[in-house]
Amino acid sequence: MVNFADRMEKVKASEIRELLALTAKPEIISFAGGLPAPELFPVDDMNAAIEAVMQENGKSALQYGTTDGLPRLRQQIADRLAAKNNIHTDIKNIIMTAGSQQGLDFAARLFVNPGDVIIMESPSYLGAINAFIPSQPNFVEVPTDENGMIMEELEKILASTPNVKMIYVIPDFQNPSGRTWPLERRKKFMEIINRYEIPVLEDNPYGELRYKGEYQPALKSMDEKGLVIYLGTFSKILAPGLRLGWIVANDEYINKFNLIAQAAVLQTSTFNIAVVSKYIDMFDLDAHVDVIREVYKHRCTLMIDSMREYFPKEVRFTDPDGGLFTWAELPDYIDTKVMATQALEQKVAYVPGAGFFPNGGNCHCMRLNYSCMPDERIVEGIKRLGSVINANLK
Amino acid sequence: MVNFADRMEKVKASEIRELLALTAKPEIISFAGGLPAPELFPVDDMNAAIEAVMQENGKSALQYGTTDGLPRLRQQIADRLAAKNNIHTDIKNIIMTAGSQQGLDFAARLFVNPGDVIIMESPSYLGAINAFIPSQPNFVEVPTDENGMIMEELEKILASTPNVKMIYVIPDFQNPSGRTWPLERRKKFMEIINRYEIPVLEDNPYGELRYKGEYQPALKSMDEKGLVIYLGTFSKILAPGLRLGWIVANDEYINKFNLIAQAAVLQTSTFNIAVVSKYIDMFDLDAHVDVIREVYKHRCTLMIDSMREYFPKEVRFTDPDGGLFTWAELPDYIDTKVMATQALEQKVAYVPGAGFFPNGGNCHCMRLNYSCMPDERIVEGIKRLGSVINANLK
Repeated sequence: MVNFADRMEKVKASEIRELLALTAKPEIISFAGGLPAPELFPVDDMNAAIEAVMQENGKSALQYGTTDGLPRLRQQIADRLAAKNNIHTDIKNIIMTAGSQQGLDFAARLFVNPGDVIIMESPSYLGAINAFIPSQPNFVEVPTDENGMIMEELEKILASTPNVKMIYVIPDFQNPSGRTWPLERRKKFMEIINRYEIPVLEDNPYGELRYKGEYQPALKSMDEKGLVIYLGTFSKILAPGLRLGWIVANDEYINKFNLIAQAAVLQTSTFNIAVVSKYIDMFDLDAHVDVIREVYKHRCTLMIDSMREYFPKEVRFTDPDGGLFTWAELPDYIDTKVMATQALEQKVAYVPGAGFFPNGGNCHCMRLNYSCMPDERIVEGIKRLGSVINANLK
Repeated sequence: MVNFADRMEKVKASEIRELLALTAKPEIISFAGGLPAPELFPVDDMNAAIEAVMQENGKSALQYGTTDGLPRLRQQIADRLAAKNNIHTDIKNIIMTAGSQQGLDFAARLFVNPGDVIIMESPSYLGAINAFIPSQPNFVEVPTDENGMIMEELEKILASTPNVKMIYVIPDFQNPSGRTWPLERRKKFMEIINRYEIPVLEDNPYGELRYKGEYQPALKSMDEKGLVIYLGTFSKILAPGLRLGWIVANDEYINKFNLIAQAAVLQTSTFNIAVVSKYIDMFDLDAHVDVIREVYKHRCTLMIDSMREYFPKEVRFTDPDGGLFTWAELPDYIDTKVMATQALEQKVAYVPGAGFFPNGGNCHCMRLNYSCMPDERIVEGIKRLGSVINANLK
């Protein structure tokens, strides 16, 4: 009888990943994943970039490389961060990762002993919860409203909670809620953090996908004490199948992340790094992001309009300024996990909300993704979902 | 003042990776890395495979995929394992990883609580020691001779050591020693393991690279109780820059590995998996491995012959049957770490042996790699190294 390590005790399958298997069938209208629209992948341009890499540099692209990753791509990332997020960083403060997911795992491993506290928004990204669980934290959730984390609640928690080792936040177009922190909250957050000096993990996979309103500064751009660890990724602006993200952090942290990466995987794929770098050199990534943004904006508007038309008035939902998701709160007597089966019978899928709360509860919520379904399926899916919800009203 | 997690306490930089930075200069004759010969990478064939993937299947290759990886590649791996290693496995018992290094990390995370024991050969792969350290094990080293792990010593250790959670072994062309276990030892090992029922991590990155003698069966092929976790990789037979390896394990373990992978990275790159699968479909991987094997065999022979010619008779070393490394034991008053500086002055690099012993000591050994240097540099490098050693003799 073989025993597993204690850290495996609470490790469980991601409900999203489980659902994805179910919803892969073409007849299902799936609002469940967080998949980018594959028809927007720049396949031909990527192919041209790959061919150029292989011709100019094939041997080094297929060889081992350094743990932090090709300097050229890290410089391109630094340039984009400066231009788009007002984050000014040296490339030595950037390390490439296998998607931003790996940054979540590395951060928990760097800071969290069993029993230590990780603070996160309530709700928060299910994949982050799962990434943190093997480090055996206690999760403390900060209540949120339509403007994201409520700073007074954060202060109360920090004032009364020992052993807080990390605060995980998604200030822009949050997964799952679709909410964005306004400037005032960001300032307040940094003021609190600077006082408590606790490392912050700022996850920003969707930041470039804003459909309306003003861009808000990244927390990292307001970080004077080097407390913010910033996670970025090419998954939502280029292609997730490449598994390419990055961490930006101060000298001390990035050195530790390098050691963790070295131990865990040696390095991120030299080849994928070379390809994305070449793509950015050869083509206009900003123009590509513009295309994505236009399509997603349209789909977002269409989904929200359809929800207004077909969902009963008892349902409250986010009208997101960007990103991939909206979030609906149903009357609290409706269990969205039970209802998901009924929806699947109508060939519509979503992610039940409970999984986004690390300490459970909140069974009346659901996350809906609008980025990867064509117009008519969005309308039809929301219509069917509206009927299912209506049938569950008391 | 931010505190890091306890698991970071002993995490340190890989001496090999540190050396690689130093030895990247073209004037250095480096026997330090474990780099495959880049001139043998099938750049044109890979390029053709990539083009085919992008044309036939670009959108799905760039999209998210399942955590375990494309079934087609796992089937190709299962077929190769059956043909070459007599390992018969269903694809549901295979999960793709970011090189076999990630399998090392995942295995330690699955089995090892802080203070638990990992048994390994003495010496063993430095990268494995580093991958295990964040799980905070105690390492117990099993003495080896020219035929690898000494089974009587393993038995003694198992009989007297509580909390052994995992045994890590490289039976074929071990890194760093270049030694291979004969059949009798493999049988004895499995007999012992079956008695103690302890999970075994069999790391086999070099298995296909045999230059002389008979192929020995993998431990996994002799595993009746499902105790052996087998790690394979495309790094040494195709290209390490793709970061593509795999784990083979029983139903229970592989399910856990899937959960760990999901939490840590969501999945291995869909794109890289599709490319390697297409490469195997379009081209003859076996023929490619034959080419590698011939070149490495030649370089191995040349290095060993040169060592016989230029090293003083006080130095004992392995004449490997395959793989990438030989291992030299110098008179025990010579500290190879100190001598490495002298060697670097002569523009020759190797890895000092001490790092391959998890509990330290053994400062008189060195690892030499012969796979990525051309003939004249092998001879010249060994000649210079011989002089450096001679100058250190008492």
